Amino acid sequence: MPVLRVAIAQINSKVGDILGNAQKIASFIEKSKDFGADLVIFPEFSVTGSPAYDLFTCKSFVKEAEKGIEYLLPHTNGIVAVIPSVRLFGDSLFNSAYIISKGGVLKSYEKRRIKRLTHLDETRYFHPGDRPCVVSVGGVQLEILMGEEFTDYEKRKDTPLILVLDSSIYRVGEIDKKREALKKSFPDLHFCYVNLVGGQDEWIFYGGSFVGYGERILSEAKTFEEDLIFFDFELRGEVSLFEEKVSKKDYEKPIVPLRGSPPKDVLEEEILKALILATKDYAHKNGFQTACLGISGGIDSALTAYIASRALGSQNVTGLFMPSRYTAKESYEDAKQLARNLQIELLEVPIDGLIESYFNLLKGILVEELREVTVENIQARIRANLLMAFSNNKGALVLTTSNKSELATGYFTLYGDSAGGFAVLKDVPKTLIYRLCEYVNKKEGRFIIPKRVLEKEPSAELKFNQKDTDELPPYHVLDSLIEEYIEGKMGGLEVENKPLLETVKETLMRFFKNEYKRRQAPCGPTISLRSLGRDSDFPITNLWRYREWSL
Amino acid sequence: MPVLRVAIAQINSKVGDILGNAQKIASFIEKSKDFGADLVIFPEFSVTGSPAYDLFTCKSFVKEAEKGIEYLLPHTNGIVAVIPSVRLFGDSLFNSAYIISKGGVLKSYEKRRIKRLTHLDETRYFHPGDRPCVVSVGGVQLEILMGEEFTDYEKRKDTPLILVLDSSIYRVGEIDKKREALKKSFPDLHFCYVNLVGGQDEWIFYGGSFVGYGERILSEAKTFEEDLIFFDFELRGEVSLFEEKVSKKDYEKPIVPLRGSPPKDVLEEEILKALILATKDYAHKNGFQTACLGISGGIDSALTAYIASRALGSQNVTGLFMPSRYTAKESYEDAKQLARNLQIELLEVPIDGLIESYFNLLKGILVEELREVTVENIQARIRANLLMAFSNNKGALVLTTSNKSELATGYFTLYGDSAGGFAVLKDVPKTLIYRLCEYVNKKEGRFIIPKRVLEKEPSAELKFNQKDTDELPPYHVLDSLIEEYIEGKMGGLEVENKPLLETVKETLMRFFKNEYKRRQAPCGPTISLRSLGRDSDFPITNLWRYREWSL
Repeated sequence: MPVLRVAIAQINSKVGDILGNAQKIASFIEKSKDFGADLVIFPEFSVTGSPAYDLFTCKSFVKEAEKGIEYLLPHTNGIVAVIPSVRLFGDSLFNSAYIISKGGVLKSYEKRRIKRLTHLDETRYFHPGDRPCVVSVGGVQLEILMGEEFTDYEKRKDTPLILVLDSSIYRVGEIDKKREALKKSFPDLHFCYVNLVGGQDEWIFYGGSFVGYGERILSEAKTFEEDLIFFDFELRGEVSLFEEKVSKKDYEKPIVPLRGSPPKDVLEEEILKALILATKDYAHKNGFQTACLGISGGIDSALTAYIASRALGSQNVTGLFMPSRYTAKESYEDAKQLARNLQIELLEVPIDGLIESYFNLLKGILVEELREVTVENIQARIRANLLMAFSNNKGALVLTTSNKSELATGYFTLYGDSAGGFAVLKDVPKTLIYRLCEYVNKKEGRFIIPKRVLEKEPSAELKFNQKDTDELPPYHVLDSLIEEYIEGKMGGLEVENKPLLETVKETLMRFFKNEYKRRQAPCGPTISLRSLGRDSDFPITNLWRYREWSL
Repeated sequence: MPVLRVAIAQINSKVGDILGNAQKIASFIEKSKDFGADLVIFPEFSVTGSPAYDLFTCKSFVKEAEKGIEYLLPHTNGIVAVIPSVRLFGDSLFNSAYIISKGGVLKSYEKRRIKRLTHLDETRYFHPGDRPCVVSVGGVQLEILMGEEFTDYEKRKDTPLILVLDSSIYRVGEIDKKREALKKSFPDLHFCYVNLVGGQDEWIFYGGSFVGYGERILSEAKTFEEDLIFFDFELRGEVSLFEEKVSKKDYEKPIVPLRGSPPKDVLEEEILKALILATKDYAHKNGFQTACLGISGGIDSALTAYIASRALGSQNVTGLFMPSRYTAKESYEDAKQLARNLQIELLEVPIDGLIESYFNLLKGILVEELREVTVENIQARIRANLLMAFSNNKGALVLTTSNKSELATGYFTLYGDSAGGFAVLKDVPKTLIYRLCEYVNKKEGRFIIPKRVLEKEPSAELKFNQKDTDELPPYHVLDSLIEEYIEGKMGGLEVENKPLLETVKETLMRFFKNEYKRRQAPCGPTISLRSLGRDSDFPITNLWRYREWSL
């Protein structure tokens, strides 16, 4: 019986690197041909990378994207390739999928449902297409859909296979949600879903491509890494009805085990994978092989260092321990222990001398005493200057260690601990950092994050006996408020409990007052349903303080 | 003959300060009543301030805005007030204008044309209304329009007066453009146009409210400041047709002179007013009475200091002169001269000692020599730390001095000269800075910006004999490329001249490569058609380099 072999190429494109992306696509096409595929499909925006934002408004960029397709044409003898890119008709730009074969463009599909997505406002750049696209490959009628167009798909007679080309970003819970939605949309149809993979600034494309038929998942690709999977459809009769057949070991790649019910800890594992991919791609795509970060002996820098060492290799990560008079002896021990455990380099740079020099200079121009906040911030900014100098000299990416709880409340020093290229934990609240560290230790089977780091009370160590709780509510309270009031719908303050109401108000006031700091913070990967980066948009100048109407 | 006296209240609302805005509105209503007005109209978003962005998603904020209208009701005996705010119907939020009188809401108008504006994406927050709104005041039928709804207005019988409530932002050329569009839309109708005024983060509402009839401007308010103007419409007959009559000196405020053809230098004057208002409002609305900035002896800090002294008062501005071994003697003289001219305080903080301390510390952890970029950035970041410490201790706003040419090319030190709360010249290219300084000197009738500052070659003074042109094209070339390729449509590189083509490519590569710096830069006022802040959206990770297709 004749067979249609489909290759699903889950690739990691780079934004703007049209030549590199085209070369990568070509190599995936060649590999698909080597394994006898009749059809190979690629994720949305494979040629341009995503999200390219205002690059789509650069004519020369769009022209080059068209050259990218030309470059691929010679690779398509003996195979049909479905390759998403952009296409210009007159002055109108479309989010298109090119169907190419035998050295020519058979046709292209222009995405019809142009949406305002959080990570890419398509309506800002693209015109919507106006017609569906059905292609015949090896006697089988295939229909192409892009993005979320599948959600209200109406089954066509004689079109038994649907291709869904997507560029869907990770958020906690999103993988399963998307999968369920696809299953529901095609209760009695075969479909191949291919999703982009890779980190791009604040977004993580998670991959997770798969072949399905209604509730059944027939084959699936990995999440958070590139993959190429094959699937054979066996054709029955002339009207293209068919049954699937998982192809045998006639190509090297084994069918990956199906996901089934997620294992315990899947959330932590998933989030870690997401953060590691985001960090790796931010570094590598921006030309950094190495990274550096301040290691304080605290939990945030410990987790950041762990993620960095897994993303870039331990030998490529350098920690700077920059103690002052306020640094506890335990912090040094914990920092050293962590570096040993992770096998990363740890350099020590004591900053008390510099602190004194700043104090003396400032005494020359100030009549009053230095305020506490001044003294604290000077220290954090000295550390930033040292880290940035190290970065400038070594070409190492500075990773920042601020977490979401700090970002939300402004509990960090601008140009101090927030200074750097990539904020790995920007969307990770403190309580989740604890959970992730515990998971890491469990997974590694040892205290790779030292036990005391998990147990001691969090402190910025910018003055003696400082504790985060001097200024902030306990993190389990704070994080639940952030989730409810900042990530959530920002509803009214219907809080019965009076003292809690005060805490809520204070937290929201801190949140609003510190927008200026967040605006100048580096980007970091999004994992939640509402990050404090591009998911939110608050004015800096903002006198809204949830004050009581007092008239 | 009966007269309808209309008051046009061009107010400066503060985002989020609903109580304060309501109190201000109340005082303008009272003043209008004192002068016998029958009707007083306010600009779009008067109650909430604009743009409030995601505050519109906070239920408690929206509720409070409704209380703002309640607060105003008792003030409306004997007058009709048209007050824009937001209004919730069920779960749907509208951009509304309340028509209130005699202590009650007569009706409200829900804006129908909800648009994606650059400074506020209304479609993100508001539902469109579905019906027009005509109100009868003193026997005259008035129709209310908001924003750009006037552009395709179709004249109604028996509705001889149109009220246009707007919140329109400044950009070079925008004031006249809006005025011409209004005139064209109402060729044979009376209209009152009221626009918001004030600075809000990166936006400047310019005011410029006026009363018109076709081509004729009958009365106009000031630009860039609050104003209250009155206009009398004399009613003829019963069908509400009428002729205008400029009201006499029966209220204290004189009719301001009509603009007519703009005086020479109006562009420079307009831009300066815009920047001064933006700086003043950013400072004051955020609770700063004083500001500080680094004074280098160069032209950028000179203009910034001038604007700051005019925005906040000379006595409220402190300059820090922070020389190093690379600072020329002339720079110190020029800095001192500038401070004397502006009557601002100048403090001297030499930083050579600190530089040495950093070098020594870094030698302890680096085997290689310090690179040039490292040495340069350390200096800029020391200055940032000192300025921020001064700010922290004094509660003074740090103004940054980077200009648009530097922002576009990344010719600044992140966490160094870009560190601060407000970037006054963020949207002002270097060549325009020269023009503005020359205009300032002409206007003041003396070299308030010292002559040598205008004449010497620009230098960052981070190494010996450094000139900006070591790295950048001459500014007149650079600025024209920025205008054409970055502010403009980013077209293809159709450049005949080969060496120029190289310069264009290098400039664009610098632009793309430095997005990470711009993302962490503070906000600053928008004056051009395309700022490098919210008007643009480029990815940080971006491998697009205008490279030749080399295959």
